[in-house]
Amino acid sequence: MTTYKIIGHKNPDTDAICSAIAMQEFMKAKGHNAQAYRLGELNKETQFVMNYTSSIIPELVTSFEEKSELILVDHNEKAQSIDNLEQYSLYYIVDHHKFSLETSAPLYIRAEPIGSTCSIVAKMFSEEQIEISKELATLMIAGIVSDTLYFRSPTTTHEDRELVEMLNEIAQIEDVEKFSLDMFSAKSDLGDITAIEMIQIDYKEFEFNGNMYGIGVMETTNAQYGINRLSEIKEALTQIQERDNLTGVMFSVVDILDEKNYSICSNEEFGVQVQQAFSSTLLENGFLDLGGALSRKKQIVPTLKNFLEG
Amino acid sequence: MTTYKIIGHKNPDTDAICSAIAMQEFMKAKGHNAQAYRLGELNKETQFVMNYTSSIIPELVTSFEEKSELILVDHNEKAQSIDNLEQYSLYYIVDHHKFSLETSAPLYIRAEPIGSTCSIVAKMFSEEQIEISKELATLMIAGIVSDTLYFRSPTTTHEDRELVEMLNEIAQIEDVEKFSLDMFSAKSDLGDITAIEMIQIDYKEFEFNGNMYGIGVMETTNAQYGINRLSEIKEALTQIQERDNLTGVMFSVVDILDEKNYSICSNEEFGVQVQQAFSSTLLENGFLDLGGALSRKKQIVPTLKNFLEG
Repeated sequence: MTTYKIIGHKNPDTDAICSAIAMQEFMKAKGHNAQAYRLGELNKETQFVMNYTSSIIPELVTSFEEKSELILVDHNEKAQSIDNLEQYSLYYIVDHHKFSLETSAPLYIRAEPIGSTCSIVAKMFSEEQIEISKELATLMIAGIVSDTLYFRSPTTTHEDRELVEMLNEIAQIEDVEKFSLDMFSAKSDLGDITAIEMIQIDYKEFEFNGNMYGIGVMETTNAQYGINRLSEIKEALTQIQERDNLTGVMFSVVDILDEKNYSICSNEEFGVQVQQAFSSTLLENGFLDLGGALSRKKQIVPTLKNFLEG
Repeated sequence: MTTYKIIGHKNPDTDAICSAIAMQEFMKAKGHNAQAYRLGELNKETQFVMNYTSSIIPELVTSFEEKSELILVDHNEKAQSIDNLEQYSLYYIVDHHKFSLETSAPLYIRAEPIGSTCSIVAKMFSEEQIEISKELATLMIAGIVSDTLYFRSPTTTHEDRELVEMLNEIAQIEDVEKFSLDMFSAKSDLGDITAIEMIQIDYKEFEFNGNMYGIGVMETTNAQYGINRLSEIKEALTQIQERDNLTGVMFSVVDILDEKNYSICSNEEFGVQVQQAFSSTLLENGFLDLGGALSRKKQIVPTLKNFLEG
């Protein structure tokens, strides 16, 4: 029997890891063999969650046997997925992002404009009336509150809130808001990380108008930590741009509690484009004020795409 | 309240029309405003079905108001959809084809590798326990048996058969196989149609390796009718190629009962490529013998794509 291999995107975040595990359990409950993997190191928030639930951390991989049957969760773009995606067979995609996808055959897709991929998998469990363990309910709550910044992100829907309520009847977390703040604090405690590492904690590549761009977002309860390291970040952005042959790299420090975005770009031309695209002002601290643009998916990427391609 | 506008592909077939109507009823049952439209004339099979059920035929359109919220059924490729697709807002896609899709925002997608789009919509009704009328059950059966050639096509799954059984508990068609044969006969009764019309009854454009191709398929219980008109068809293929600025046009006469494919191409180079791609022989009647390649989606398009891009 085929073992479906489940992967979230590169630079996995909590939703990518937790939805891969949730999809693994869903497929098993439907009588399939399935195994969740990860394409990169866990960030500190996800480490906190995996410790909290004592879950088995998915194995790190860079490739599978050719023709392996894959399930992609929390992404659908080639640039964010496993290298050489075309040498595998796509069986299922579960995602809540915009689509940029070419397949060679029909496949299963379940996509919704909802706060997290864990929200979609939780709905799938619920629709099929499959029992959810306490551990899995906690992992799915973590994915939802992480991606929605505890319902602060404009990507949040009423369904996300309802699903967290439903899941917490099983998970029995005493205070989900406190749990979320603990997650965000864990993510914000970066220790002695280099600027390049900081930019790449939550980093994705996008194609706009035929050119490749990188966008890193640091969601944090301690924005000052990032703001204080302006000059190092500038240098690191230039290095990433050259290393990966990109047209531009952008880094956003997102203050989760104050709901503010402070951004900076790898070169002047891209910086001017970002400033114009968001009608933003340059702050005294050297960062562009991108207002309440908390969501890369719903705010940063569509605005840039419209500006650069429109 | 938004009225979602539902469209199947250009040159609509029975599944495109019936799944648009089914999706309209699904959305209404979920409390939305929704209206099914069509992007082209009904073929004779679909006319037969609409007469059989006395259904209201969706209105023919070529455009909507800008920013209208669209639901695409039975297709996802830009070339097969309404002109200037980018000026509308995509809300939902329900489809069973391979994907080639770029969206600017997250959306709902429900895709499955199953025999018809009506099969997917029927599952959606069933999952949500929404009542299905006798008329709608008949329309969805028509979509399933049309697209699967009454379960002969290799795209058929066990779910398609089960769904027809489930739907016929409501539709109460006395003999579904006879109903299918009557549909296929209606489709095969072409009257005094021109060769260009014949090629375009069920016709789609595809991009392979950066070039555009047209592929027409005539599923018929009377293959001899097409075979006898070889020289007219050759001329018409050349006309379509020039008119639409295509690299090649292919026309397949598919004998539904004998499960055979007889094909011909618009120019010699493309003809040789098709012959090589399918390892086929040229018959005395002037057509290439494509064996049992009944399905454009599962057999013709993937084979051509692999050959031309591989």
